[in-house]
Amino acid sequence: MATSSPAIAVDTHDDYPSRVFDTPQLLPRRDPVLYSEPAAGDQLPLSAQQLDSYEREGFLLLENLFDEQEVAVLRNELEYQKEEAAKGGSAKVITEPGSNAVRSIFEAHTLGRIFPAVASDQRILSIVEYLLASQVYVHQSRVNLKPGFRGKEFYWHSDFETWHVEDGMPRMRAISCSISLTDNYQQNGPLLLIPGSHKTFVSCVGKTPSKHYEQSLRKQEYGVPDDESLKKLVDDSKIVAATGKAGSVVLFECNVMHGSNSNITPYPRSNIFTVYNSVENVLQDPFGGLEPRPEHIANRTDCNALQKRFVDYRALAGC
Amino acid sequence: MATSSPAIAVDTHDDYPSRVFDTPQLLPRRDPVLYSEPAAGDQLPLSAQQLDSYEREGFLLLENLFDEQEVAVLRNELEYQKEEAAKGGSAKVITEPGSNAVRSIFEAHTLGRIFPAVASDQRILSIVEYLLASQVYVHQSRVNLKPGFRGKEFYWHSDFETWHVEDGMPRMRAISCSISLTDNYQQNGPLLLIPGSHKTFVSCVGKTPSKHYEQSLRKQEYGVPDDESLKKLVDDSKIVAATGKAGSVVLFECNVMHGSNSNITPYPRSNIFTVYNSVENVLQDPFGGLEPRPEHIANRTDCNALQKRFVDYRALAGC
Repeated sequence: MATSSPAIAVDTHDDYPSRVFDTPQLLPRRDPVLYSEPAAGDQLPLSAQQLDSYEREGFLLLENLFDEQEVAVLRNELEYQKEEAAKGGSAKVITEPGSNAVRSIFEAHTLGRIFPAVASDQRILSIVEYLLASQVYVHQSRVNLKPGFRGKEFYWHSDFETWHVEDGMPRMRAISCSISLTDNYQQNGPLLLIPGSHKTFVSCVGKTPSKHYEQSLRKQEYGVPDDESLKKLVDDSKIVAATGKAGSVVLFECNVMHGSNSNITPYPRSNIFTVYNSVENVLQDPFGGLEPRPEHIANRTDCNALQKRFVDYRALAGC
Repeated sequence: MATSSPAIAVDTHDDYPSRVFDTPQLLPRRDPVLYSEPAAGDQLPLSAQQLDSYEREGFLLLENLFDEQEVAVLRNELEYQKEEAAKGGSAKVITEPGSNAVRSIFEAHTLGRIFPAVASDQRILSIVEYLLASQVYVHQSRVNLKPGFRGKEFYWHSDFETWHVEDGMPRMRAISCSISLTDNYQQNGPLLLIPGSHKTFVSCVGKTPSKHYEQSLRKQEYGVPDDESLKKLVDDSKIVAATGKAGSVVLFECNVMHGSNSNITPYPRSNIFTVYNSVENVLQDPFGGLEPRPEHIANRTDCNALQKRFVDYRALAGC
């Protein structure tokens, strides 16, 4: 008599299982997008149209939030921190595949005096707190330097998929903020987003090996959505490129599908990237069952709420 | 007494030396762009504005030159030839790095009945003959299938640099024609061109090893322009993406600098690519001194002038 094969135990309490099934799944989002409920007479940090667009599309492009002088201060600071990072030795510094060029510096919000101020800048923080109806802390931060000529593509992914499986972020209640320090054109590898994709969770196939993150920050292999799911998301919507002048800001919801193409143009791209997570959504044990990734990739100790501040960047830089 | 090192012999009769100097050089073009001289009353295959634009920018985008029904016939034929090519075994079939997906089929103008007709289509041939003031033959032809999701970038290059050094094309008197069989968007890796770059020859550094072409059709390593030269070409001009609907045609001069970014979108790209060379510009020995590349990459035997023909694609396909 044949014995039946044992049922695979899947945590039924996980709304967002990934890397556990043999086939991809499209699962509905089980969390709000816009956590605040605007009432008549409220003082809102965004227009009703912007709030509606964020809820529907999963991201917001805020042009010229930082002025030219502020951008100059931030670029100057970036150059300084890049030179410091290039001296080597830090696990927080990621280089381009096949070269020593600095691509990212993690925990940027702890570097010097200027980047910490950026993370608490009231213009951004007031919006993020409103969207999440909560105080927030920095889940992850980095500065990215995408070089011209040889900037590589970054494949489609939902940040939340990784943060949930590998870092133990329980709910979709986090927002990424990218401040452009260079102009973003159609052709220099701008951030590409699929509007509306934040309302679907793409459960990916493939088990995650231990400590794979040491490579995955350069090249993704796990938590990669399948072709068919991506095609459906795009067919139901479109692809939008976050182009705009230096000083523009993109806020995007943690589950929106995004990626970028390569950059063979001479125009480099750099940005300051900060992930704000609700203080009510701090990390648990990773849902994928592996060891948590390091603190500089997924902060689980310093989760105090950020305090909004007005920042005078020129004064801070000693101009 | 020290003996002086012997002088390196450089062919002073070569207007376009490349891969011979230790540093990159920007050399002036020594050939006409527009070979015909329009006179009042001439019957022209293009408007005066188009001729002027071609002379100045080095390329022309002709939207909707092929109608939807013609595109359908050509796509159908492409699918058939791709399936034939996927059966394997031909050196004329190039696959994607790291996969068996067909990326290009060379000598497309000799395949079946339809692709040869495309190469002689009077709509294209009459323009090319006028621009080059000459009858022409097919120097190289291929169909390209750039897949969605994982289409790789193709770095900046001048075709003429390669054809001169590796194939022995003497003068700049050839034109490439790309017929799009899919829609080209900003984000699915369209052809990028630097307008005006055809008036400068970028002499590249680095010696060419023998038989490197077996790899270079997938990944370039030789004849690659340096960053500084590229930056100057772009700073003096801009970058233009050849976007447009399926059925559009790009004609570009053999020395215009071009390339393409990766394509992570679900939208594939395919085209029919034909290089027309003047019958007065047939190949000599390669200027780089190596063995000529194979005939399917650089035709040096079947150089008879093409005869323009009116093509009824639907009839040809038996519709």
